[in-house]
Amino acid sequence: MVNTSVGIVTTEYVEFDLELQLESGRLLGPITLAYETYGTLNRDRSNAILVTHAWTGDAHAAGRHHPDDRKPGWWDDMIGPGKVLDTDRYFIVCSNVIGSCKGSTGPASINPRTGKPYNLGFPVIMVRDMVRAQVLLVDHLGIDRLLAVIGGSMGAMQAIEWGIHFPERVRGIVPIAGCGRTSPMAIALNAVARQAIFNDPLWKKGNYKPEHPPADGLALARAIGHISFLSDRSMQLKFGRRFSARDGLFDFFGRFEVENYLAYNGSSFVDRFDTNSFLYLAKALDLYDLAWGFESREEALERLDCPSLWFAFTSDWLYPPYLTEEVIAILQKLGKPVEYHLIASDYGHDSFLVEPEKFTPKVVDFLERRLAEAEKAVTGDG
Amino acid sequence: MVNTSVGIVTTEYVEFDLELQLESGRLLGPITLAYETYGTLNRDRSNAILVTHAWTGDAHAAGRHHPDDRKPGWWDDMIGPGKVLDTDRYFIVCSNVIGSCKGSTGPASINPRTGKPYNLGFPVIMVRDMVRAQVLLVDHLGIDRLLAVIGGSMGAMQAIEWGIHFPERVRGIVPIAGCGRTSPMAIALNAVARQAIFNDPLWKKGNYKPEHPPADGLALARAIGHISFLSDRSMQLKFGRRFSARDGLFDFFGRFEVENYLAYNGSSFVDRFDTNSFLYLAKALDLYDLAWGFESREEALERLDCPSLWFAFTSDWLYPPYLTEEVIAILQKLGKPVEYHLIASDYGHDSFLVEPEKFTPKVVDFLERRLAEAEKAVTGDG
Repeated sequence: MVNTSVGIVTTEYVEFDLELQLESGRLLGPITLAYETYGTLNRDRSNAILVTHAWTGDAHAAGRHHPDDRKPGWWDDMIGPGKVLDTDRYFIVCSNVIGSCKGSTGPASINPRTGKPYNLGFPVIMVRDMVRAQVLLVDHLGIDRLLAVIGGSMGAMQAIEWGIHFPERVRGIVPIAGCGRTSPMAIALNAVARQAIFNDPLWKKGNYKPEHPPADGLALARAIGHISFLSDRSMQLKFGRRFSARDGLFDFFGRFEVENYLAYNGSSFVDRFDTNSFLYLAKALDLYDLAWGFESREEALERLDCPSLWFAFTSDWLYPPYLTEEVIAILQKLGKPVEYHLIASDYGHDSFLVEPEKFTPKVVDFLERRLAEAEKAVTGDG
Repeated sequence: MVNTSVGIVTTEYVEFDLELQLESGRLLGPITLAYETYGTLNRDRSNAILVTHAWTGDAHAAGRHHPDDRKPGWWDDMIGPGKVLDTDRYFIVCSNVIGSCKGSTGPASINPRTGKPYNLGFPVIMVRDMVRAQVLLVDHLGIDRLLAVIGGSMGAMQAIEWGIHFPERVRGIVPIAGCGRTSPMAIALNAVARQAIFNDPLWKKGNYKPEHPPADGLALARAIGHISFLSDRSMQLKFGRRFSARDGLFDFFGRFEVENYLAYNGSSFVDRFDTNSFLYLAKALDLYDLAWGFESREEALERLDCPSLWFAFTSDWLYPPYLTEEVIAILQKLGKPVEYHLIASDYGHDSFLVEPEKFTPKVVDFLERRLAEAEKAVTGDG
C-alpha cells in the first residue's frame, strides 16, 4: 500500500520582534506565527506553496501530531506524497493567521504593553494584515517567490491579497470558494452570530476567563455560521425532516435531527476555539474588499501579475458564484491570464472540503505549469 | 380621488366555550379568536374570503384602528374597495391564529385550569389546529362555504390545510410563497432563532413576566428570521456594503448598514410580539407537513377538491420554489385543477408582500371565476 500521509508533524513557532503597521494604522507586535511545513524546499527554493486557511482553520493542514490522533490536519485529503499538493515535489507551508487562537498572535495573546491578554484591546485586522504577517514567515523561510498561494473561503481572500499586494513574491494564486468582497448577506449572518456572543453574559465585553468562555453564545454563533456553510440540498440529503428518535414530536423541546447536529457542532466548537478570535476573524471577513485602499477593483486587480485559477460552487450561497464571477470579468477585461471553473456541487460553501476531487485535477495542472515556469526561470537565469 | 381604504375598523373577539382536540391529542379550550371583517356578506353568504396570516401577523389585515394610526393593516395593499380582495364584491375575514398573541388564545392566555398564563404549559400546535379553530369562526359567521382561502407563507399552509381537510367548505385556495412541508434549512434557521431565546436568562423557560421579556433573545431570533425573509439580491440593492456613517470602519463594534437594520428590526419586534408565541408558531412551521396523518402526500392531496392557485418566488430561499413545485407535480398527476406561477422577484420570501402587483392579476381572475361558480351554484340550487 502506498503511503500518502505526511506522517507525524509538529507545529513550529516563530516570533518576529517588530511592530507591524496594520491597515487600521495601529501597530501590532511582537508577532508570533504558528506554522507547519510538509515536503522539502528544493535547492532553488522555487517549489514552495503556501496554503491559507479558512475562518476557524489552523496551521495543522496535514498529517498527525501524535500517532493516536483521531483526525489528521484539516486538508490532509489534499496534502501528502502523490496527492494534489504533492509533498514529493512541493514544499508546503501553512501558517495560522494573526487574530486567530491556534498559536499565532491574537486577542488571547498577552499584550506586551499591559502584561495581560489583549481581549478587545486587540486591533481590528483585515485579511491584508494576515498576509503581511505571512510575508514575514515566507522571508524567514528564505523563500523569495512562492510557487502558489492556495486556499478556500477566507483562504481564497488571502490568496487574492498575495497576488495583488506581493505580485513579485508569487507565481500563481488559487482562490477557491472566495469572493472579491463579502456580500451584505454574509455580513448579516456574521452580525447575528456576533450578537449571539454579545448577548451571553459570560462574554463580559471580551474579558471572560479562558476557562469560563461564553459557551452558549459561541456555540450558537457557530451554529449560525454552520448553516451558511451547508446548503438546502445538502441538508435535505443529510437530515431531511427526520425527527430525533428520543424526542416526542409534540414535546416543546423536541428536536429534528438537523437541530441535534447544529447543537452538537456548536458545543464541540467551544472546546476548540476562542470566542474573541471568532469575533475578530468574522470582522476581517466582513471588511474584506479587494478594492480597499484603491480607487476601484480594476485598479487593485491591475496589480495582479501572475496566472490565477479560480473555483466557485453552484450551491454556495454564502459566497455565491457571482461574487467570484464579477472578479473574473474584471480580470478578463484587463487581459490577465485567468482560469475559472464553476463546479456543480450540492454541498454549499463546504463543497471545496467535501468534494475536492471535482476541482483538484485543474489544480494539479496549474501547479505543474507553475513549476515548469519556475524551473525554466532558474535555467534562464543560470 | 377614489377611496380605496376600508377605513376605520375594529378587531372583534369571539369566545368558543369548548375544548378543541389538537393533533397532539391534547385539548385546548375555551378558545378566543380575534378577527376582523371587511365588506359585506351577500345574501347567499357565498362571497366570503378568508385571509390567513403569516408567522407574526394578526387579524388586522386592512384599514386603520384609529385615524392617526401610522400604518394600516398588514395586507392593506390587497384589501379594499376596488382592490384585489375587493370589499365592494367580497366579504373578507381575517383571524389571528391560535398560538399567537394578538388577541387569540395562545401561550400568554390564562389557563383556566390554573388561573395563570399557560406559558410552556400551552400545547404544541400544528397549522392544522389553527385551521380547526378558524372553522369555528366561519361557522360562527354563518358561512357554509368560503369562496377562497388566501395567504402567504404560514398563511399558505393554512390555505392548503383548509383545502385538504375541509374540502366541502371552500371553493378555492390560493397558497402564496408556501410549501407542502418545511425544509431542514427552514428548521435549522428556526432552531438557531429558538436557541437565541433559550440562551437569554430572562426567558426563564417561558416564565418571564410580560413586562420583562427576554428582549435580547427575541430581538436576535427575529433578526435571524428576518435574514431568511430577504435575499442576497435584495440586501445588495438595499444596503450593499455601506458602513454606518457614525461608526469607524476599524471600531470593533462598528456596524454595516445591514447590521443596523437587523438590530433595529429585532428591537422593535420585541414591543409587538410575545416570545413564547414566537416559539410556538416557529414549532408549528417546523412541524408543517401536509402529509401528516396520511400515508403519503398523494393521499393527502387526493382530498383537495377545489381549484387551487399557487405562487412561488424565484429568490425565496426560505421556502424555495421546488417545495411548491413538488406539490404541484402531485396535483397534476392526480388530475386536480391547479394553476401555478413562478414569479421572478428579487425580494426573497418577502416578495409576496413587496411586489404583489406581480401576481395579483391572476388572483383577481381566480376569484372572479370562483364567484361566478358560486353564483351559478345558487341559481342551480334555486
